[in-house]
Amino acid sequence: MPALTALPSEDLADLAARLLTELAAFRGRGLKLDMTRGKPAPEQLDLSSDLLALPGNRDVTTQSGEDARNYGGLQGLPEARALFAGLLGAPADQVVVGENSSLALMHDSLVWALLKGVPGGARPWSQEGEIAFLAPVPGYDRHFAICEAFGVKLIPVPLTGAGPDMDTVERLVAEPSVKGMWCVPRYSNPTGETYGAETVRRLAAMRTGAPDFRIYWDNAYAVHDLVEAGPPLENLLDACAASGNPDRAFVFASTSKITLAGAGLAFFASSPANVAWFLANAGVRTIGPNKLNQLAHVRFFRDADGIARHMAAHRALLAPKFEAVEAALAARLAETGAATWARPEGGYFVSVDVRPGTARRVVALAGELGVKMTPAGSTWPGGKDPADANLRIAPSFPSLAEVKAAAEGIALAILLAAVEAEQGARGETTAGA
Amino acid sequence: MPALTALPSEDLADLAARLLTELAAFRGRGLKLDMTRGKPAPEQLDLSSDLLALPGNRDVTTQSGEDARNYGGLQGLPEARALFAGLLGAPADQVVVGENSSLALMHDSLVWALLKGVPGGARPWSQEGEIAFLAPVPGYDRHFAICEAFGVKLIPVPLTGAGPDMDTVERLVAEPSVKGMWCVPRYSNPTGETYGAETVRRLAAMRTGAPDFRIYWDNAYAVHDLVEAGPPLENLLDACAASGNPDRAFVFASTSKITLAGAGLAFFASSPANVAWFLANAGVRTIGPNKLNQLAHVRFFRDADGIARHMAAHRALLAPKFEAVEAALAARLAETGAATWARPEGGYFVSVDVRPGTARRVVALAGELGVKMTPAGSTWPGGKDPADANLRIAPSFPSLAEVKAAAEGIALAILLAAVEAEQGARGETTAGA
Repeated sequence: MPALTALPSEDLADLAARLLTELAAFRGRGLKLDMTRGKPAPEQLDLSSDLLALPGNRDVTTQSGEDARNYGGLQGLPEARALFAGLLGAPADQVVVGENSSLALMHDSLVWALLKGVPGGARPWSQEGEIAFLAPVPGYDRHFAICEAFGVKLIPVPLTGAGPDMDTVERLVAEPSVKGMWCVPRYSNPTGETYGAETVRRLAAMRTGAPDFRIYWDNAYAVHDLVEAGPPLENLLDACAASGNPDRAFVFASTSKITLAGAGLAFFASSPANVAWFLANAGVRTIGPNKLNQLAHVRFFRDADGIARHMAAHRALLAPKFEAVEAALAARLAETGAATWARPEGGYFVSVDVRPGTARRVVALAGELGVKMTPAGSTWPGGKDPADANLRIAPSFPSLAEVKAAAEGIALAILLAAVEAEQGARGETTAGA
Repeated sequence: MPALTALPSEDLADLAARLLTELAAFRGRGLKLDMTRGKPAPEQLDLSSDLLALPGNRDVTTQSGEDARNYGGLQGLPEARALFAGLLGAPADQVVVGENSSLALMHDSLVWALLKGVPGGARPWSQEGEIAFLAPVPGYDRHFAICEAFGVKLIPVPLTGAGPDMDTVERLVAEPSVKGMWCVPRYSNPTGETYGAETVRRLAAMRTGAPDFRIYWDNAYAVHDLVEAGPPLENLLDACAASGNPDRAFVFASTSKITLAGAGLAFFASSPANVAWFLANAGVRTIGPNKLNQLAHVRFFRDADGIARHMAAHRALLAPKFEAVEAALAARLAETGAATWARPEGGYFVSVDVRPGTARRVVALAGELGVKMTPAGSTWPGGKDPADANLRIAPSFPSLAEVKAAAEGIALAILLAAVEAEQGARGETTAGA
């Protein structure tokens, strides 16, 4: 099919009529599919079944001879930190293991920055007047929500396919009120892009107006490849140290999408000064983390190879779902100009840019088809996508058959919304819509 | 032995010489005992061994049919909330289950109050100028540390044996800058006292200058009896509601000293408005708690009777240790006037008031004997006990034989320090000290 904009109005009207018929037929299937959140499927969680009976009741002694059941060990077990050090790109003594949520560690890092300040800063951020974070867009709504909850302004920065537009970033961070920046550097949520080496180096080296600027580096998909050899990611901590900005990066990760989404381990990694700062604050908050879950993870994986084998099993389950989305979108939308979309090599999302002004309409249409989508706009600060164009598809949780059906429904909704919009632009209407 | 102050100076000198000889002999035993923190002993943790292989890998479905392994369920599993509702004195829908640390929930509640405010307040507490919390003394150093970390002033209020001196509390809370108060209402840390019914009612009903005043009610020892039938505690949430102050109380508890000190469950309970506020903030911080550990606890205990039976097993292990402390103190110190001490019916501590001005000396002397004690002053805000008199003994962790030896050493140190002080007051010196 040619581009919609090139179709004669009569053909457009025919297409609209056909799509409405298809819509009615699809609706008649009575589907109820949820494509909203990046949740692992039950089959993925089954990969970690053995974890559910670990550490077991025979041996709760850590490598250093401590009883993992009792209080203490604020930084996390050395063996757990060593196991995940590679994933974090930091030596084990610069890793902190938290509870089950890396988001919580990001929240706490911001809260402590607001109330106490960070190393290199003159005062708590809450005493600095209005402060801002850069928000590469489209991005992750829960990152934005943390800033929004505490009155930190979000400044959108466009992503390029290899990370944020660094000219824009460098210009914006010159402003001293810009205190931080959100990044999902590998398989970014939702675009799937991985930051290029040059991007990482510029992030590490750029001059910031704030001496206590921090990059919140949420490496949520560090090992979450959909292909055998995904793109490499430069080590930001190393790059920051090499650029004379050793304290710039806060690195976060978790095993939520490696082991158990609700019951994994979360990590913070950073420079020695930042880790000391984090632990000083964390030590006011808690006597120590759940070390039994750390011990369970250590015994489950044993080593980095164990993690790699485990992620290959995830890939085998996830890749077909992403292929199904790609196939459905390509079959319906190729050449139409109604949408462009990512073909991610990892992560949990397919980002789709539909015809500007139609994203909310697509979500509404998909809803009529029984396909629940992440609300349009949610990939932007404040939930407001100025172009009303970006959509996030999360194909991990439903079964492969459901993903196929849902993606076909979404593609149908995207095309119909685009046809409606084109007709509207021409002053025509879609009969019966 | 008569009171030291009544001893003729010659007898006092003889006693000093004898005690120094004993000190040298005790030191010669080369003991290394740690009586500093209220940690459960390994035998106590063994009571929860079955928990370490739960929930197991066969059934991870919650009562409502959800997969406990995945994201979500911010408030905690309904069955976990129901199981511990009695302990918290709140209906299950007013209970929130967190991770392993109730201290973390207290920290977060204060942080959110500072940055966002609480229901009934005009603004975030961090925008109120200097604010203060009341700190019943002697109290728990980690409570004080949270306030100290965030610049919240602590105003000591004396405990009476049935809770804080309410005349003083009522006078102080009339001041609008007094925003909150710490309470360990049952088997208070360290005094072991339980707040009386009248105290609870007055706390609930008192007029506060701050409309958004909060009681941080850390019911850490709710079911931690050392006797078969401990003293009752009035329900503060009910009392607050009955007094027209439904949002006054934040209730906290955990299973740290019920199941596993590092890997239990922590709870927040409060009014519907406060629970909604807590969840709104918690939802920015995390997608949900570790529900597998909740499921494990539910399957381990089954019901409230299961908890009661479990606590009876703790009592059987703990009570002899407290009896050993009592016996050692009584044997050495009765009638001497060198110290008074609590005979707690529950909790984890024995609070000892030594001769004013000698607490630090006692800790130092005990250290020479190989007995590590909680630093003198730590039961007071800022670590400064103005009378230098209160000491906290934590007999739970060491073995019974170790507790016996440690308590004998502590009693010896208390008496010697008192003798030294009495001699000092008379202008005499302890030969060879």
